[in-house]
Amino acid sequence: MSEHLNTRIVLAARPAGRPTPSDFRIEEQPVPSPADGEVLLKVLFLSLDPYMRGRMDAAKSYAAPVEIGAVIEGGTVAEVIESRHPDYKAGDIVLSHSGWQSYALAKGAHLRKLDPEAAPISTALGVLGMPGFTAYSGLLTIGQPKPGETVVVAAASGPVGSAVGQIARINGARAIGIAGGLDKCAYLRDELGFDEAIDHRDPDFPERLQAACPQGIDVYFENVGGAVWDAVFPLLNPFARIPVCGLIAQYNSKGPFPGPDRLPRLMRDILSKSLTIRGFIQRDFADQRPAFYSEMTEWVRTGKVKYREDIIDGLRNAPEGIIGLLEGRNFGKLLVRVSDQFA
Amino acid sequence: MSEHLNTRIVLAARPAGRPTPSDFRIEEQPVPSPADGEVLLKVLFLSLDPYMRGRMDAAKSYAAPVEIGAVIEGGTVAEVIESRHPDYKAGDIVLSHSGWQSYALAKGAHLRKLDPEAAPISTALGVLGMPGFTAYSGLLTIGQPKPGETVVVAAASGPVGSAVGQIARINGARAIGIAGGLDKCAYLRDELGFDEAIDHRDPDFPERLQAACPQGIDVYFENVGGAVWDAVFPLLNPFARIPVCGLIAQYNSKGPFPGPDRLPRLMRDILSKSLTIRGFIQRDFADQRPAFYSEMTEWVRTGKVKYREDIIDGLRNAPEGIIGLLEGRNFGKLLVRVSDQFA
Repeated sequence: MSEHLNTRIVLAARPAGRPTPSDFRIEEQPVPSPADGEVLLKVLFLSLDPYMRGRMDAAKSYAAPVEIGAVIEGGTVAEVIESRHPDYKAGDIVLSHSGWQSYALAKGAHLRKLDPEAAPISTALGVLGMPGFTAYSGLLTIGQPKPGETVVVAAASGPVGSAVGQIARINGARAIGIAGGLDKCAYLRDELGFDEAIDHRDPDFPERLQAACPQGIDVYFENVGGAVWDAVFPLLNPFARIPVCGLIAQYNSKGPFPGPDRLPRLMRDILSKSLTIRGFIQRDFADQRPAFYSEMTEWVRTGKVKYREDIIDGLRNAPEGIIGLLEGRNFGKLLVRVSDQFA
Repeated sequence: MSEHLNTRIVLAARPAGRPTPSDFRIEEQPVPSPADGEVLLKVLFLSLDPYMRGRMDAAKSYAAPVEIGAVIEGGTVAEVIESRHPDYKAGDIVLSHSGWQSYALAKGAHLRKLDPEAAPISTALGVLGMPGFTAYSGLLTIGQPKPGETVVVAAASGPVGSAVGQIARINGARAIGIAGGLDKCAYLRDELGFDEAIDHRDPDFPERLQAACPQGIDVYFENVGGAVWDAVFPLLNPFARIPVCGLIAQYNSKGPFPGPDRLPRLMRDILSKSLTIRGFIQRDFADQRPAFYSEMTEWVRTGKVKYREDIIDGLRNAPEGIIGLLEGRNFGKLLVRVSDQFA
């Protein structure tokens, strides 16, 4: 592979608040050769996800931070270029965690082979991948929506939120989506079949949310935090469930946060309404993955669950992509097309 | 019953912050006569519990507030004086919810007959009653302590906390109790078998708590809130469970609460540690009551669960009792002896 170079994007500096282009650095290196048991991958799609912002901080979250100078982490769909693992051959398409680079080595045990006939390969990073499974496992295990209940989800046109709303409807619940902008709201109602969609940029957002939830809120799938939380909180019904899988609105702020202190009020409502708040990441529910792949593939195939992708061309544009994602500029699952398949 | 008067304590005013004696008023009325299906009860023991403070506010919590001029609510053990219900006869001892008064009418369906041979009748208001069931249901259903895990509970010499720690130990977990004062801490260690007991009045309380929990905290049974929460919070392990059944430290404050705002930090930890916070009241788990009565009665009989009562003589002293309870002055389950049995 000596005619190719591996383009990689490393963390140049830890962002102070929102990331800027200077926090990233593009490097080129020789493409490495696989050792025994390894494969050489050419990355086709890189997934950009809100959790990546957390990995750029020095503090340990549920995973270790990315070191300064290291390739930024990320889920990828890749093509096997050269294999020294018995289960893989050149041309296979796999799900890998190769990060922000155009070529990568991987151990065979860390890969999952994809069937390009079953679904477009990019969906392994979205509706049939980590975001879809986050929605599925968190909503069904923690949220437990019942027929007639009201489920609210923010960032609802994104890959997690859109799956949450559609799975809620499959379970007979009302789905209320919150998104930024009229085009996203129209998409939620007209394309995805949400019962209501509310623009959080609307100056009357809290009142509109309340009007959309005349029976209160039974499940709030929390993936944003911030001002949406303040509007949702007073509407929670007794025994409401709140799966927490993301807080994108506060990822760029470190605190301390100015008062008043909202914790005593939260605890009081947790107590007086018997609320359940539970954080999770999808790997907490790894034993549900087979059921997810089977059910979700069928829902996508039959059109019960629809999805939308927002594709950026070229790895060099990934930094702008993640910066935009943290500002809500994407519309659908954000992916970087790193290389063309079989090119 | 014309020779007797019913002494009743009514809510004279809604307390601003901590209750004062002038918020209560003692009245005397004729003892009423039971209608068909009712019994007349003479109250023997009145239970004083932290939840009563919430009922004195105008805001609806999980139950409606006590109206101004109305008898204050409360669980009671009473003797049937006159019965017009086929299931009860004079002399029967029953669990009722007769409130702060010396005589009361009750419908038979609202009573539970007690067996004075099985356990002292006062325990129906404590270890074998609502507080014991709060500990049992919240700890086992939400806390789910596993062998070797660390369970922390505050107000640990009280009726809920003492049961939480002892049931945690029955389940093979380490029990760390927090209480106010050296005598209470000694009682927890020496009488109840807690692994450690920490005085929250100690200036080094957070450091001592940390030293007592070298493996972190897996279950925090929240029944106080306030400063204890701040010491517990950083020690929570991934996947920790936090049943919330009380917040006595904040019952006397209305807010708004001064900053900094602790909510974003809480939400971040809920997410990064996959925490579960769930509020409950014991009636949420009503289907577990038969198992509770059976197991807890056996544990008390065999000495695996011990209890302590703090008994005030005379209904007129109930206001001072509840004021002291909210300041942590009681030592054990606080009861008012309203009348002597068979007197």
